[in-house]
Amino acid sequence: MSMQLNETHDAALRSWLQSANDAECEFPLQNLPYGVFRRRGEDEQSWRAGVAIGDQILDLRAAHAAGVFGDAEQLAQQAVIAAAQGVSLNALMQLGAASWSALRLALSRVLRAGARHEDKLRACLLPQAEAEYNLPAQIGDYTDFYTSIHHATAIGKLFRPDNPLLPNYKWVPIGYHGRSSSIGVSGQQFRRPVGQIKAPDSETPVLAPCKRLDYELEVGIFIGGGNALGETISIAQAEQSVFGLCLLNDWSARDVQAWEYQPLGPFLAKNFASTISPWIVTLEALAPYRAAWTRDAADPQPLAYLDSPQLRDAGAIDLQLEVLIQTPAMREAGLPPQRLSASNFRDSYWSVSQLVAHHTVNGCNMRAGDLLGSGTQSGARPEEAGSLLELSGGGKKAVELANGEKRIFIEDGDSIVMRAVAHKAGLPRIGFGEVVGTVLPARAL
Amino acid sequence: MSMQLNETHDAALRSWLQSANDAECEFPLQNLPYGVFRRRGEDEQSWRAGVAIGDQILDLRAAHAAGVFGDAEQLAQQAVIAAAQGVSLNALMQLGAASWSALRLALSRVLRAGARHEDKLRACLLPQAEAEYNLPAQIGDYTDFYTSIHHATAIGKLFRPDNPLLPNYKWVPIGYHGRSSSIGVSGQQFRRPVGQIKAPDSETPVLAPCKRLDYELEVGIFIGGGNALGETISIAQAEQSVFGLCLLNDWSARDVQAWEYQPLGPFLAKNFASTISPWIVTLEALAPYRAAWTRDAADPQPLAYLDSPQLRDAGAIDLQLEVLIQTPAMREAGLPPQRLSASNFRDSYWSVSQLVAHHTVNGCNMRAGDLLGSGTQSGARPEEAGSLLELSGGGKKAVELANGEKRIFIEDGDSIVMRAVAHKAGLPRIGFGEVVGTVLPARAL
Repeated sequence: MSMQLNETHDAALRSWLQSANDAECEFPLQNLPYGVFRRRGEDEQSWRAGVAIGDQILDLRAAHAAGVFGDAEQLAQQAVIAAAQGVSLNALMQLGAASWSALRLALSRVLRAGARHEDKLRACLLPQAEAEYNLPAQIGDYTDFYTSIHHATAIGKLFRPDNPLLPNYKWVPIGYHGRSSSIGVSGQQFRRPVGQIKAPDSETPVLAPCKRLDYELEVGIFIGGGNALGETISIAQAEQSVFGLCLLNDWSARDVQAWEYQPLGPFLAKNFASTISPWIVTLEALAPYRAAWTRDAADPQPLAYLDSPQLRDAGAIDLQLEVLIQTPAMREAGLPPQRLSASNFRDSYWSVSQLVAHHTVNGCNMRAGDLLGSGTQSGARPEEAGSLLELSGGGKKAVELANGEKRIFIEDGDSIVMRAVAHKAGLPRIGFGEVVGTVLPARAL
Repeated sequence: MSMQLNETHDAALRSWLQSANDAECEFPLQNLPYGVFRRRGEDEQSWRAGVAIGDQILDLRAAHAAGVFGDAEQLAQQAVIAAAQGVSLNALMQLGAASWSALRLALSRVLRAGARHEDKLRACLLPQAEAEYNLPAQIGDYTDFYTSIHHATAIGKLFRPDNPLLPNYKWVPIGYHGRSSSIGVSGQQFRRPVGQIKAPDSETPVLAPCKRLDYELEVGIFIGGGNALGETISIAQAEQSVFGLCLLNDWSARDVQAWEYQPLGPFLAKNFASTISPWIVTLEALAPYRAAWTRDAADPQPLAYLDSPQLRDAGAIDLQLEVLIQTPAMREAGLPPQRLSASNFRDSYWSVSQLVAHHTVNGCNMRAGDLLGSGTQSGARPEEAGSLLELSGGGKKAVELANGEKRIFIEDGDSIVMRAVAHKAGLPRIGFGEVVGTVLPARAL
């Protein structure tokens, strides 16, 4: 369903809201991403679900109360009720793909130029410039994958020059469980983590602020629906269990990780903060941007539970990713964030549906609101690296910034900005907004 | 606070409930563990908090409604209100150690022989034989540690005979994030997991039912209170953030684990099911059973954030652990579960407070209801192994059962039973009840 085009994808559609029709706008009528927002300064009870349109947010609670969905089909009306209740999107996520699709169609119709209720709907808009955001869902479990073969190879080379890619990589979508409590939304500020660090030339570790703080450019995948313990989600059904995608910065303390990660994997190196975009873009909005898997002909074919003839031609998503930095000096000089690298989610070795099918093949249950991370998205070329660890060749050569500054790893006060947009000629831009995070100095020891 | 003895620990205390005074009883007046229960067959709204006493459960919602805590101090009355609301213990866990201690004192006083309100309280009892249990808390994040040096060494020997213990083990309380969605309460039945398995003599993996299904004998640690992101919980304060302990069976698919775990740790090998006891025993109830750390004199001293002069003498807990098996043939023949091994939590290399201090040293936030697993608790001697992988020497020699059956790993229909009790001469037994889990056949492939 999510890969089929329908009237909501028509590139000629225009909204009665002029800002949504701008060719540069990330939130045209064909996007309609979901988030949780309030007017800046409102209280904790004011968080509510919204849809980004142009430079505004449509307040779904207010729109429901205004009765503008009377013409929509029943599934859509039920979905609006789910979205309008509570302070997160979990209830909407729980409903499943048919409901999400019905709601998208209803939203597309009421926001189109010439639609009834324009006046009522205008009263339900809040300018994005006046909003602040919360996590869009209560996240139960968070799993991080490792889907970029370019990233896995680059990292592997740093540790094992002769044998960078482990034998399981092309068979198993490698993943591990992460921490949900420390996931924040764009704008998150956090202290540089402190941890045990053992210098290569030292016999013993010390407790110290992380010296090799890094970002990881990832795509987040929000689960909707779900499965009961002991049941599976087949690859054919997997995308019906994906509510949508977000951007994810999986902050990493490389020096902490190097000392702690054997034999059970990363732990304190990752769980001090992770930052996601406020907007969740549905798979349906991304349907025009599906692309073929990039698996080489010489690579092993996926095991049957990870394979799908349909997905070979359209399993990937052509989503342009970008990471930028703004240092304190740049901020003071009024300089905008500067690009560090760019990559494309299309180059991921494992696709979204393969991750879901793999995660549940053992009967592990997924719940609406669970989050999967794609793992760092790096491309084949060095400038497409999704982390500073890669860009700096393992911390050996500094990245030079336009203002003369240099960075090997992230310094105090630096903001890291990530952006994502799906775009090709003749189609509207499908954007994710930004995910911004800023590193504060470590606590005193 | 949790290590100090007070009137609730008086071994001479007797209850008006005779079954609580039996020397063999696991739930005497000095224990008072918390759980969530309902009468068997009641509906989903009927889950409520209770305290085990003798062979009964005191219904805290009913006891609050009956007004039996009118003489208790205000902190205790607030704690009862928190426990009486909702369908989990999270609200009570949130309150913190002073409140838990006040509630324990109030419960001890109303349940003592000669107390007022005996008749009213008798009306709030449900026989444990008529109860069923739910998870005691909504578990946000689940972290599993690796605190038994004997287990780590035994497992390490299987993979690296010359170098079984990695260099970080005696410095870092090794841990990793696990899955909270698949944690169930005693009585859990689950299908044998299916997963990618690569035989040593095969070039390629296959999808197949796990052939090396194992248990892990662990102690679970429920967090109460918590810390804000960016803050820490010092080792001196750590036990104030521990609501109590439970028993935990961390089921493991060894063949899946061997193929998937490099480089990011165990994933599908662990997240198909984990089973905990219905009862959470407070640290205060275990105060008479504190013991010295077992760290060897030749071992490195812990870094300062993991060290505490007070805890050196009392950081450990003398808790006897036991694991048993009941096969289908034993069940049919009316044979009780047979012991596979026994160990003691006292032998853990890292203590509860060290785990909490380490987990938060980087600013990672903990929330009330979070669960930590101790990792498999094995002792120094082979018969103290906390898993079949160890008992069978890496799957090489079968364990012989009294009825003539043999086991290398768990077979379909087997039930694994874990028990824990703190006990020494002159003191009442502090028991955890049982955690039982049963393995069903794998789904058809």
